[in-house]
Amino acid sequence: MSEESLLPNAVRIIEVGARDGLQNEAQLPTEMKVKLIDQLSLTGLTHIEAGAFVSPKRVPQMADSTQVFSQIKRQPGITYSALTPNLRGFEQAVQSGASQVAVFTSSSEGFCQHNIHCSISESLQRFEPVIEAAKRQGIAVRGYLSCVADCPYDGPTDPDQVASVAKALIELGCYEVSLGDTIGTGTPYRIAKMLEAVRRCVPATELAVHFHDTWGQALANIYQALNMGISTIDSSVAGLGGCPYAPGASGNVATEDVLYLCQGLEIDTGVDLQAVAQAGWMISRALNRQPTSKVSLALRHQQQNPV
Amino acid sequence: MSEESLLPNAVRIIEVGARDGLQNEAQLPTEMKVKLIDQLSLTGLTHIEAGAFVSPKRVPQMADSTQVFSQIKRQPGITYSALTPNLRGFEQAVQSGASQVAVFTSSSEGFCQHNIHCSISESLQRFEPVIEAAKRQGIAVRGYLSCVADCPYDGPTDPDQVASVAKALIELGCYEVSLGDTIGTGTPYRIAKMLEAVRRCVPATELAVHFHDTWGQALANIYQALNMGISTIDSSVAGLGGCPYAPGASGNVATEDVLYLCQGLEIDTGVDLQAVAQAGWMISRALNRQPTSKVSLALRHQQQNPV
Repeated sequence: MSEESLLPNAVRIIEVGARDGLQNEAQLPTEMKVKLIDQLSLTGLTHIEAGAFVSPKRVPQMADSTQVFSQIKRQPGITYSALTPNLRGFEQAVQSGASQVAVFTSSSEGFCQHNIHCSISESLQRFEPVIEAAKRQGIAVRGYLSCVADCPYDGPTDPDQVASVAKALIELGCYEVSLGDTIGTGTPYRIAKMLEAVRRCVPATELAVHFHDTWGQALANIYQALNMGISTIDSSVAGLGGCPYAPGASGNVATEDVLYLCQGLEIDTGVDLQAVAQAGWMISRALNRQPTSKVSLALRHQQQNPV
Repeated sequence: MSEESLLPNAVRIIEVGARDGLQNEAQLPTEMKVKLIDQLSLTGLTHIEAGAFVSPKRVPQMADSTQVFSQIKRQPGITYSALTPNLRGFEQAVQSGASQVAVFTSSSEGFCQHNIHCSISESLQRFEPVIEAAKRQGIAVRGYLSCVADCPYDGPTDPDQVASVAKALIELGCYEVSLGDTIGTGTPYRIAKMLEAVRRCVPATELAVHFHDTWGQALANIYQALNMGISTIDSSVAGLGGCPYAPGASGNVATEDVLYLCQGLEIDTGVDLQAVAQAGWMISRALNRQPTSKVSLALRHQQQNPV
């Protein structure tokens, strides 16, 4: 893009591996999830999404979120958040001790209908009581917005539509909107156009990017977003949530790869890459596979084969 | 970077899979290489590196380059090039009918010594008779320059050193220098600094980038290079040359991933992504593995699972 770079000095990583990652992996015992979150809590990460209070029938991988929240060793200064689609989920999350919650909708009607079985505006109405209750209890609410580039049902998403739903989420009371390229088809030019539109309605400081690497474009897109002043990035240790259909394929961008990019751009994250990579190998072994993070694989090779 | 974007309207892809890719893979029968090159010749690619005339002891995978060149069905408008380290290799390449040759050196002394067993300046001297002979026969010579970001032996490479060797290659008579991030450790900021230094000595039109994806940064780095006016990109079908040490790990950036990026940036390549992906699956099956190209995996999934 032709504008002046707004590359931030520091970036906040939202670690979504234990939720968005593991909900798309084989089911693991509760103690493995707890072990992962505890290990991640010692890496410098300040925000760990630890579970979801959703239908256990639809998402059996998250059915033990109450136990996970009760068993983790909370470290000071870390936000442990939970996904809560409705008031019931919100109440469970609060009872479980979640320090923050997140609601989710889509910027495309097709995905909204298929994913949460209502229109976008109905989904926003559904969040009202959640956000009201959260306000009363002093709990911050994050908003997830999916399909910001393309929708598997509706095709390309209009950037103005993304902007309009993002603005609605902020007006409802979300402190931040995470813009998700859910199917990972976006490329930097279209991501830039989308971000341009959204920034006209919501300040960059209230935006995060949540990019999937299914088409290999996540880091290029994150680099574009950083250059446009976005300083909050969602990512998943070891690329958890990858392999949705084939070995080597990817869903969530790997935290390790984002940390390495930021390190090279001289952007401070406060997170220890090696420690995150170790947590990634631990959970990947439990899932009986390798991390999808190229940085993690390269680090391991480097350690095993010093020059 | 803060400068105005110089994103080109069109990009030339140099397909290096049949050489730089296959020389780092299990040995294949000659007919498979010929089949690959013939299939790639029908995709719109205009430059295919088809073999190397190097020591068959050191690189047994390339020992049949004479047969490959004699058996391929040449298509009009396509350059079929060969790597030639010295005069002997050059003469074999010409006899085999290579339409262009390439020489290679390093921008770091350590890698130069380990890879071709001489200093950088000795390597340049060695190229003089090759380039002289090529000039007499009207054959264009491309220069490969490795370790433009980091060297496994010497650490970070000084951008001015890259610029100085690139300039020397152009002055010797190379029409283009391909800047290789051989170990894939570069990130966009350092790549930008390197390109800034090189562009002060060599015009962007005489530069190509040759990025490895070992640390997952190749597309972000290519995006940076495109924004700085680089319009020639080396890439490898199916990410051939990947898996140097682990399943899922990468060497060369995959042509499919570069094509998808360019498509999204509205940059013309003249190359049919689907046709390249098909060639990639064909050769990957012969190697008994999957492409490392995320785009290729995603395309296949999309075809097998229409919405």
